[in-house]
Amino acid sequence: MRKQKPVKESFVIMTELVLPNDTNTLNNLMGGRMMHLMDIAAAIAAQKHSNRIVVTASVDNVSFREPIRLGNVVTLQAQVTRSFSSSMEVHIDVWTEDIPSGTKIKSNEAFYTFVAVDQSGRPIDVPEAVAETEEEIRLYDGALRRRQLRLVLAGRMQPQDASELKALFNME
Amino acid sequence: MRKQKPVKESFVIMTELVLPNDTNTLNNLMGGRMMHLMDIAAAIAAQKHSNRIVVTASVDNVSFREPIRLGNVVTLQAQVTRSFSSSMEVHIDVWTEDIPSGTKIKSNEAFYTFVAVDQSGRPIDVPEAVAETEEEIRLYDGALRRRQLRLVLAGRMQPQDASELKALFNME
Amino acid sequence: MRKQKPVKESFVIMTELVLPNDTNTLNNLMGGRMMHLMDIAAAIAAQKHSNRIVVTASVDNVSFREPIRLGNVVTLQAQVTRSFSSSMEVHIDVWTEDIPSGTKIKSNEAFYTFVAVDQSGRPIDVPEAVAETEEEIRLYDGALRRRQLRLVLAGRMQPQDASELKALFNME
Amino acid sequence: MRKQKPVKESFVIMTELVLPNDTNTLNNLMGGRMMHLMDIAAAIAAQKHSNRIVVTASVDNVSFREPIRLGNVVTLQAQVTRSFSSSMEVHIDVWTEDIPSGTKIKSNEAFYTFVAVDQSGRPIDVPEAVAETEEEIRLYDGALRRRQLRLVLAGRMQPQDASELKALFNME
Amino acid sequence: MRKQKPVKESFVIMTELVLPNDTNTLNNLMGGRMMHLMDIAAAIAAQKHSNRIVVTASVDNVSFREPIRLGNVVTLQAQVTRSFSSSMEVHIDVWTEDIPSGTKIKSNEAFYTFVAVDQSGRPIDVPEAVAETEEEIRLYDGALRRRQLRLVLAGRMQPQDASELKALFNME
Amino acid sequence: MRKQKPVKESFVIMTELVLPNDTNTLNNLMGGRMMHLMDIAAAIAAQKHSNRIVVTASVDNVSFREPIRLGNVVTLQAQVTRSFSSSMEVHIDVWTEDIPSGTKIKSNEAFYTFVAVDQSGRPIDVPEAVAETEEEIRLYDGALRRRQLRLVLAGRMQPQDASELKALFNME
Repeated sequence: MRKQKPVKESFVIMTELVLPNDTNTLNNLMGGRMMHLMDIAAAIAAQKHSNRIVVTASVDNVSFREPIRLGNVVTLQAQVTRSFSSSMEVHIDVWTEDIPSGTKIKSNEAFYTFVAVDQSGRPIDVPEAVAETEEEIRLYDGALRRRQLRLVLAGRMQPQDASELKALFNME
Repeated sequence: MRKQKPVKESFVIMTELVLPNDTNTLNNLMGGRMMHLMDIAAAIAAQKHSNRIVVTASVDNVSFREPIRLGNVVTLQAQVTRSFSSSMEVHIDVWTEDIPSGTKIKSNEAFYTFVAVDQSGRPIDVPEAVAETEEEIRLYDGALRRRQLRLVLAGRMQPQDASELKALFNME
Repeated sequence: MRKQKPVKESFVIMTELVLPNDTNTLNNLMGGRMMHLMDIAAAIAAQKHSNRIVVTASVDNVSFREPIRLGNVVTLQAQVTRSFSSSMEVHIDVWTEDIPSGTKIKSNEAFYTFVAVDQSGRPIDVPEAVAETEEEIRLYDGALRRRQLRLVLAGRMQPQDASELKALFNME
Repeated sequence: MRKQKPVKESFVIMTELVLPNDTNTLNNLMGGRMMHLMDIAAAIAAQKHSNRIVVTASVDNVSFREPIRLGNVVTLQAQVTRSFSSSMEVHIDVWTEDIPSGTKIKSNEAFYTFVAVDQSGRPIDVPEAVAETEEEIRLYDGALRRRQLRLVLAGRMQPQDASELKALFNME
Repeated sequence: MRKQKPVKESFVIMTELVLPNDTNTLNNLMGGRMMHLMDIAAAIAAQKHSNRIVVTASVDNVSFREPIRLGNVVTLQAQVTRSFSSSMEVHIDVWTEDIPSGTKIKSNEAFYTFVAVDQSGRPIDVPEAVAETEEEIRLYDGALRRRQLRLVLAGRMQPQDASELKALFNME
Repeated sequence: MRKQKPVKESFVIMTELVLPNDTNTLNNLMGGRMMHLMDIAAAIAAQKHSNRIVVTASVDNVSFREPIRLGNVVTLQAQVTRSFSSSMEVHIDVWTEDIPSGTKIKSNEAFYTFVAVDQSGRPIDVPEAVAETEEEIRLYDGALRRRQLRLVLAGRMQPQDASELKALFNME
């Protein structure tokens, strides 16, 4: 039987200071640099769940609503939400602080998917992810719908077969 | 009347060599680094269309199917597909070559959205994007559907109002 | 009267993946790179305590006992221990994990001192640090002795005036 | 008998320009970046003395008194002071110049300790260090006291056994 | 007989955004960083011509006439001009755009020479380069003269034996 | 009358360790990275001679004969050879050591030219360079010939007007 592991054991906090080379000419953090940081935080969470080397399989839609400034402190919190055979979905929340002015906002949120691989790079099964808190269960439950959306967007599932997604757009 | 500009004037080619610090312990390019490169290429395309400073607004779902190796050459081709007031959608194709072995594959594809801003960071209108070739028209036409998906995923549009999207999941 | 602030409000967790450029030809993390990471984590803790820009004033003796390998995950935990007018001592613990092999050790420990400054770089007073837990009180109490050692080592205090330090070497 | 080698053969000069990414939001060099540069300079000095790969074992207390600005030129001078079996103490002096304004100050001073290792990372003996000038002899003589302080601070020597250190805090 | 290959198959376009760490205190791109970018673009062109790993053999005189600013977009176009046994000359044109102000100038031009090597680093023959357009033929024809100049400057050819070069300075 | 300054006052030594990100897939230092390091060392020498901000004006032909390996120590020695109004020629010698194997070779040599500028980037006169040793005088004397070659190669001097160069290719 497949091993079970609480999702909270994969929890990772990463804190970064926004440095000059991370910014554009308006002194704002570039979106691509943020996605790079989120990838590292999320990869560590997936490693912790699987005790394996992991490779990024996909990133869901990410929005950038608030400018993040040079000198701001960015805190990323990543945790596995659910696993499917060799793949794991990771949820990332990003908080941005301007410490001297005392402001702190939730600036970003994202879902990354990773595949655990062995030393030759071949996919390998990972433990089943066990959600415990209310929030963990909410994220666990939504994982199937997000997975269908990814498969549809990647052209690997027909929209009409995406039962979970259809419910989302269900008009009756 | 709003200025018009052919999308092809925003076309950008960016070529990068995969260096050690871009790779994980399997010597494969990390997904986050690729998203960083795609952000820079796409931002330049959006700058060329708008002649403005631009900031990343969102990134659509991106998949990573093929490992990209240390020493590989990565070629990114970015071009604006359509504009909406101050925002522009950019399409990016990524080709990966292992030159000594003579292999070349299309490794990634993505859509990034940017907003043009003035020196104070306030959104500012951009030229209307004019699609000319068959491929440009296909991307232009799909932009509205992708935009609705972004708005739904960002919680800023109700699924039942996403007319273009609904067609995709049309159940009749 | 001087504002008081619990030290726990300055707590920072920073997680980093050891990348190729951080390592020497044995594929081990270089000591100087670790001190750079500790400086950033500790500076953020000092910023959180003071809500000010901070500059590094000194670093106490740091030891490197265990090799940290390429691909390891390094977790830094930093927290202010005590403040003196415009300066703050920060304690940093570093944990190193080799996730695929499931090992995790405490690899380093350090004390950094920062000075809070205003926009012109002039020192400015910070809140008094309030220790609450047993461990926080232990670190708070030792701060005076470590401060005297710093002053003696910097040639700004005579050894015979370092009352706390003398006790340490007291032979009666 | 153990090989002897004059300490001056390990002398290293390293010159660096302070670049944007090395600085904080006040445009001053971050302390951690300076410790990173000192580590590289000192490691090269230890390599030259031992003709071996070396790993950082410890760093003594370092003070940062003067702000170092973006665009300043930093000159590090490193030289082995003394060796003990497989370990070497290295002394580093740092000079900071603002060339357009013609100012040059000694900004930092530090002692790093390195261990010479073979290809498997095991400690290996190094030549005895021979001090020749008055300054070299002064640094050589102080090395034993600093070593005892390191051992006491690392909890590997009892303060009452640190004969050299006790003299420093001599209470009679 | 030696394989032939049109030079246009080696054509490479590389686009880069000038970031803070690439600039000096006047916010201008440093010349050395530009030469680094040109080396990467030219190396990829030489790789494409030879389908081999390549190493830089020499760089001809490069001039820097126009300041390139932080935030500018730099486009490098590289193409092999001619090959000699295991070496290839690559021509690079660099265009610099300040997109918000709508200016675009040709800022640099250079010739780099590379040698194709096998996995042990030994030189290995490359295909003959076939020039087709008028511009390609002009660059092909000049390659011999530039090669003689390189050999003379490297002290490996006597000026009086440099027949092509002599013509350049021929005064009759 | 123009100020005079001995060239030896501009002497700079820079030592660098070859790190993973500086190398290609054969683990050799990339030529472009070396030119970047030479640019920084030479710029500091030109700053020291002029006490001004300087910008790179040109780089003469540079050859790369010996592979430089990951982990090697590279020592650059730069010194102004001669000045012309606002420009300075700088000579750079590069030594490469593989310290564990005890080898040290002169791997590169180059001439860079810089222009001193004021805060608005306008050229400004620099002190006259005074050569004193035999070697300094040899480099000073050759500077005029190298300058003519640069002007001819940049298309700013007719070959027949390059009196110093013509001597080099003397045909009588």
